[in-house]
Amino acid sequence: MNAGTNIGTIHGVGLGPGAADLLSVRADRLVRTAHHVAYFRKAGRPGQARRIVEGMLRADVIEFPMEYPVTTEIPVSDPRYNACLSAFYTHCSERLAAISQQGEDVVVLCEGDPFFYGSFMHLHARLSGRIPVEVVPGITGMSGAWTATDLPITWGDDVMTVVMATLPEAELARRIRETDALVVMKIGRNLPKLRRAVAAAGRMDAAWLVEHAAMPGQRVTMLAEAEAVTPYFSILLIHGQGRRP
Amino acid sequence: MNAGTNIGTIHGVGLGPGAADLLSVRADRLVRTAHHVAYFRKAGRPGQARRIVEGMLRADVIEFPMEYPVTTEIPVSDPRYNACLSAFYTHCSERLAAISQQGEDVVVLCEGDPFFYGSFMHLHARLSGRIPVEVVPGITGMSGAWTATDLPITWGDDVMTVVMATLPEAELARRIRETDALVVMKIGRNLPKLRRAVAAAGRMDAAWLVEHAAMPGQRVTMLAEAEAVTPYFSILLIHGQGRRP
Repeated sequence: MNAGTNIGTIHGVGLGPGAADLLSVRADRLVRTAHHVAYFRKAGRPGQARRIVEGMLRADVIEFPMEYPVTTEIPVSDPRYNACLSAFYTHCSERLAAISQQGEDVVVLCEGDPFFYGSFMHLHARLSGRIPVEVVPGITGMSGAWTATDLPITWGDDVMTVVMATLPEAELARRIRETDALVVMKIGRNLPKLRRAVAAAGRMDAAWLVEHAAMPGQRVTMLAEAEAVTPYFSILLIHGQGRRP
Repeated sequence: MNAGTNIGTIHGVGLGPGAADLLSVRADRLVRTAHHVAYFRKAGRPGQARRIVEGMLRADVIEFPMEYPVTTEIPVSDPRYNACLSAFYTHCSERLAAISQQGEDVVVLCEGDPFFYGSFMHLHARLSGRIPVEVVPGITGMSGAWTATDLPITWGDDVMTVVMATLPEAELARRIRETDALVVMKIGRNLPKLRRAVAAAGRMDAAWLVEHAAMPGQRVTMLAEAEAVTPYFSILLIHGQGRRP
């Protein structure tokens, strides 16, 4: 397309939990035909989103790796954390907008589902209304995780609660106590705290830890037997026990 | 395959929220190559799962529509409801097991994700351990719904709660009050009760109703403006408002 005659679309494309054949048909088509792809990653790492689509991209694809300026070096509570990330998301958004204004589409590769605890939403919030933005939902990491346990997560009228392990310990314990089914994400270095919260809620025997769901290193263990440190791609589950005719 | 030489696999295949191109690549392949497909539906209706795959099935496919003996005619609280459904799920499971024992695979078409408030789990519970059962996760109906609103459902450390509108009104109000992001399913005739619970929780201005997400009749309205009766395929959402750099 010629510059100025068209405006391109930014596609936030959910890639699902990690296996290449768990992309949706729509996502698969967008990824394979994309001339421009962008994805978040930690500096110096290949990036999980990029890894999922390995071997699927056009030979002439133009890649835009968006490297986080900070991940765990500054505490989230530090005002500099938000300021630094905000400037980063604005910078990325402007670069995507510039490609769009040249009449080119961009596929932004998003792990899981773009609107569910994703990073794409920070670009969406900056671009939506100015530039055409389309979102393709994806299979969430948590769906990959409960499928890996080979047990349903919710039955009948079960209440399901999704919490981040970054919450305070007492708050985690309360949430765990008050739900039927539970999903915990962002575990990483919060595992010791999460373990204490699960124990305080009296649900240690029901808690499963799934690492790298739907990926080559998939591992399913009971929390009671899990090691102290788990990768970021780990999800804790407690399955609901509701009505089952 | 010849009878007796092999045992077939029962595949519980998530179809996603409703659009044919939101099946995963794995699900798409299984559906298109299946010799046997099974799906739940209300008697006398085409069935939503079957509708999603219209035009995708083999010409020589053998279909097994599993028609619920009861949907809303008997209250869920009546012991006959559970007994009736239990016998039905057992009957369906035995029929699928018989096909498997003839060495044939069966693809069970599941709306959304099979292990998330699905009906397939009742077959899985009866077949698992006896017959090979494989589950393909799918994009949930709720992902389809929040994508339809064009707004992220969760940010930062938001807590997300999923509840069924079948819960008592006071319980609904409490759950709505105590969460950041909310998803309510199984709305149908519970809409007036749900509306009162949302109002009691003081969140009427934030509540969205999505009907037929990712389907031809998709409609997104604020709850305050919604009509009294909505179809079963409607989902209520309140978006989280967490940290957004």
